Amino acid sequence: MSNLDDILKSRRDTRHFTAEEVPDEVIKKALQAGHWAPSVGLTDATRYYLIKSHEVKSSIKNLFLDYNKKAEELTDNLEQKELYKSLKLEAIEEAPIGLVIAYDRSVLNQFTIGTIGSNEAVKFSSVCAAQNIWLSLTEQGYGMGWVSILNYYQFKKILDLPENIEPLGYFCIGKPATNYNNQPMLQQLHWKQKSEAPICTEIKEIHQINVSPFDLQSENKTQNKADFYTLLQDKIDSKTKPVGSLGTLEALAFQMATVFETLNPKIEKPNIVVFAADHGIANHGVSDYPQDVTRQMVTNFLDGGAAINVFCNQNNIELSIVDSGVNYDFPTNAKLIDAKIAKGTQSFLHVPAMSESEVQLCFEKGKSIVENIARSGSNCIGFGEMGIGNTSTASVLMSLLTGFPIEDCVGKGTGVENEKLLLKQNLLQRAIENYSGQAEILSQLSYFGGFEILQMAGGMLAAFENKMLILVDGFICTVAYLIAFKINSNIKQNTVFCHCSAEKAHSELLNYLEAKPILNLDLRLGEGTGCAVAFPILKSAEAFLNEMASFESAGVSRK
Amino acid sequence: MSNLDDILKSRRDTRHFTAEEVPDEVIKKALQAGHWAPSVGLTDATRYYLIKSHEVKSSIKNLFLDYNKKAEELTDNLEQKELYKSLKLEAIEEAPIGLVIAYDRSVLNQFTIGTIGSNEAVKFSSVCAAQNIWLSLTEQGYGMGWVSILNYYQFKKILDLPENIEPLGYFCIGKPATNYNNQPMLQQLHWKQKSEAPICTEIKEIHQINVSPFDLQSENKTQNKADFYTLLQDKIDSKTKPVGSLGTLEALAFQMATVFETLNPKIEKPNIVVFAADHGIANHGVSDYPQDVTRQMVTNFLDGGAAINVFCNQNNIELSIVDSGVNYDFPTNAKLIDAKIAKGTQSFLHVPAMSESEVQLCFEKGKSIVENIARSGSNCIGFGEMGIGNTSTASVLMSLLTGFPIEDCVGKGTGVENEKLLLKQNLLQRAIENYSGQAEILSQLSYFGGFEILQMAGGMLAAFENKMLILVDGFICTVAYLIAFKINSNIKQNTVFCHCSAEKAHSELLNYLEAKPILNLDLRLGEGTGCAVAFPILKSAEAFLNEMASFESAGVSRK
Repeated sequence: MSNLDDILKSRRDTRHFTAEEVPDEVIKKALQAGHWAPSVGLTDATRYYLIKSHEVKSSIKNLFLDYNKKAEELTDNLEQKELYKSLKLEAIEEAPIGLVIAYDRSVLNQFTIGTIGSNEAVKFSSVCAAQNIWLSLTEQGYGMGWVSILNYYQFKKILDLPENIEPLGYFCIGKPATNYNNQPMLQQLHWKQKSEAPICTEIKEIHQINVSPFDLQSENKTQNKADFYTLLQDKIDSKTKPVGSLGTLEALAFQMATVFETLNPKIEKPNIVVFAADHGIANHGVSDYPQDVTRQMVTNFLDGGAAINVFCNQNNIELSIVDSGVNYDFPTNAKLIDAKIAKGTQSFLHVPAMSESEVQLCFEKGKSIVENIARSGSNCIGFGEMGIGNTSTASVLMSLLTGFPIEDCVGKGTGVENEKLLLKQNLLQRAIENYSGQAEILSQLSYFGGFEILQMAGGMLAAFENKMLILVDGFICTVAYLIAFKINSNIKQNTVFCHCSAEKAHSELLNYLEAKPILNLDLRLGEGTGCAVAFPILKSAEAFLNEMASFESAGVSRK
Repeated sequence: MSNLDDILKSRRDTRHFTAEEVPDEVIKKALQAGHWAPSVGLTDATRYYLIKSHEVKSSIKNLFLDYNKKAEELTDNLEQKELYKSLKLEAIEEAPIGLVIAYDRSVLNQFTIGTIGSNEAVKFSSVCAAQNIWLSLTEQGYGMGWVSILNYYQFKKILDLPENIEPLGYFCIGKPATNYNNQPMLQQLHWKQKSEAPICTEIKEIHQINVSPFDLQSENKTQNKADFYTLLQDKIDSKTKPVGSLGTLEALAFQMATVFETLNPKIEKPNIVVFAADHGIANHGVSDYPQDVTRQMVTNFLDGGAAINVFCNQNNIELSIVDSGVNYDFPTNAKLIDAKIAKGTQSFLHVPAMSESEVQLCFEKGKSIVENIARSGSNCIGFGEMGIGNTSTASVLMSLLTGFPIEDCVGKGTGVENEKLLLKQNLLQRAIENYSGQAEILSQLSYFGGFEILQMAGGMLAAFENKMLILVDGFICTVAYLIAFKINSNIKQNTVFCHCSAEKAHSELLNYLEAKPILNLDLRLGEGTGCAVAFPILKSAEAFLNEMASFESAGVSRK
């Protein structure tokens, strides 16, 4: 076969092979075809692994079976389920040659052309190589089948691939036993019909982006609530306990009743929202974790395996996960709220982290997320975050907004040990010195800000407007609160500071804010975990106010 | 050009185009080539958008310039920066045709074959289409350049693409103005050299994943314990969080696993026992409440109206009420455990509070109550108390057992204001001076002890013997612990100090015991309320250890 169109058209995702051997030259020629594929920034990141061993193939087959069983369960349509089960979707053991096409994502650790908008370009280069190999094999009279129904984590383990090598799948190679009537197998079996022609639209004009500026002006409403306060304090003091003996719980009950404007306050549909984003500053070694951990942890949140999942589960708190700007394209997931501004901020060591319009957008998106939650009937919202490098961002913002020297604002983050702390501090000091912008908050936020931090700040302001109880987590979240507080200091009435973290700057900041945290458990994880762990204490406050007997009703003597 | 290898080899990522028009048939043929690309599960998700408008191109060019500027800043190497700036990385405005290749990720909303292991397969199908188009254009004598240096969020906005449409990039199409000497442009310009041949390795055997089960039945117990601690710490550290970042929760989980002797500790049937008794010393005005309040509050406990009822209810803790020696004959009540020694102690201002045999009886009754609870399947017991005047008893015992002067051991109790504090202190000082007995603990306990305090101490010792987790409440309860600790200091391994109360002597005593309390909420109520309010924190420790994903299972990178 020599005509390109014929090759393209007859290339099949093959699942039926003869037992015929595949000569080494065929594979060599095919891999050379792969090597001619584009390679973004000439990173040369594609790697190939050949598999002939029956033992290896059989282990991979087992992985397939395991996941294919799960796939079956994904449809409730019985007819579809039966048809699915009848489909042959791999030929791992029959095909004489197995090939793993993978890419080495460690190339991204260096400066790489073409990856600033999306680091997926490296992966895409390898997919182009896969397609070239497919075409070359087709031309040579062989076939290939792409098996993607695998647990990639176990797949890598079995093959002992290094952590930085990411496989695209397992590819079966051999002599095809059928041509499926010159059409895709799934079409031949009436699973689906491929459209006749490509779907193409011409775009003739640009769409104007309008972002209405966020209203930074607060209204200073004061209302005489003296009567309400008296009634409320009487109710608290009438409970069968010495006056004041429930300490902080009494203060929390008072606050809750005031925020909800009732003597019988009830927390409804509590929700913790975790905002995740990446930070350009992470490229400068401020964290011991690679940036990719942000993505990995978001996946962990979605899969239910992180600390915040466990604590929300424990305490019946709804959990919402927001992609505020992770450096990764997440596939559609109903559980993930898409509020992506961009794939991470830029490094404020050299350039502004984001534009001023992006700051506005952050506030808008944060506000809109919280308004949706309020509309769903929730009156209590906790804020959490995830973002490798975000303690650096938070430290700089704290320093600028409080006037504290940077050394008082820098902590270990989640992963930096003492010896590195000074480096981090110096780096941030340099960034602050490089900043030639104004002392105006919008300018500071755009230069140093993180997407998740600003979305939290916007969200907190919206929570206040919606008369919600606002739960603040650790250091980074408290910096978001600081921003919101600078814009509208009334927000404090609604805010519960859930804990004082082990991050030293956090207690400084809480002091500055005259905030008294509920817990002091040396937590330094973020994710909103402090809110979730402290939540039962709020429930205790709610419970004693609503459920305890009074001296009168229980017939207990007052002193 | 018709030979596949020639096409594959001469395909270039083109950035230099002539002004020559591209006929519609060329594009049509190329998109058809794209359409012949694989489509996972026949999802047909690839979408094409054509751009000829100069206005649209120019807006996209601006997006590119914006991000390319940022890319420049990512390298600190000056030579590299200069070379980078000199590179031509796009031809958005010059190329006659712009093409956006995108995929519709909404196909994932339905059951889709081949996406269970990774839903990236949909995206990869579109990349294969891109490669086919590239090859087809090359065959037809045209060129294409893939521009990925874009803010995709803004890119989608400008093009007004629906939320579910994800572009792979912007592709410039036209007649190439150069062939870059038959090599990648970046190689021609000496940016990098592409490797000569593909990098391929054969994998000949599978890597065994070994998980060794923990064996508690080992002969060598010390070694066994050390191994257990190592395994336990490994388990804690393998959770998807920075090491140590859950602070106190990690210490609690470690303790719980050690007490329950399992890597998967579970709190079973938690129980809080409130021991109530009266004190002869109450007749001397050490409390502002009349002695009858002890009885009234026991009734309140039985009726469910007290703070401890509300908090136990909230946190699903069983509540047991014990009459250790209230000055009242309660009618038979199934909910009240009768362990009455006498109707209150005598006043230790004049005579011993109880006899030495009553001390023994207190220990026995306390032990028997706790053993019954252990037999019912509980492995976690909280201790609380009620007794007007019992802070006085506790203060004296603390002073005698620690050697601290009485003024360090006296607090306000639940009802004494500052002016009365000195009177209380002097009274207790006199009682201690009156005591002519031995420094032996049994003698001290019988002279000053309270029935509920000694029953708690006996109960704690029994809880330790029964491998239970012991929850200690406030000041009085901690004095009971002090007595138990003096008898068997190993008890500390099993003990959780739930809170530090507002009673000033409590923090002194906790310091003396080198105990770190979980909460600090200014509680000073007793009844075991501190245990009940802190209990969810223990549940959080249990939950994270049992339910969180590990780095391995979640595929998250360790630092």
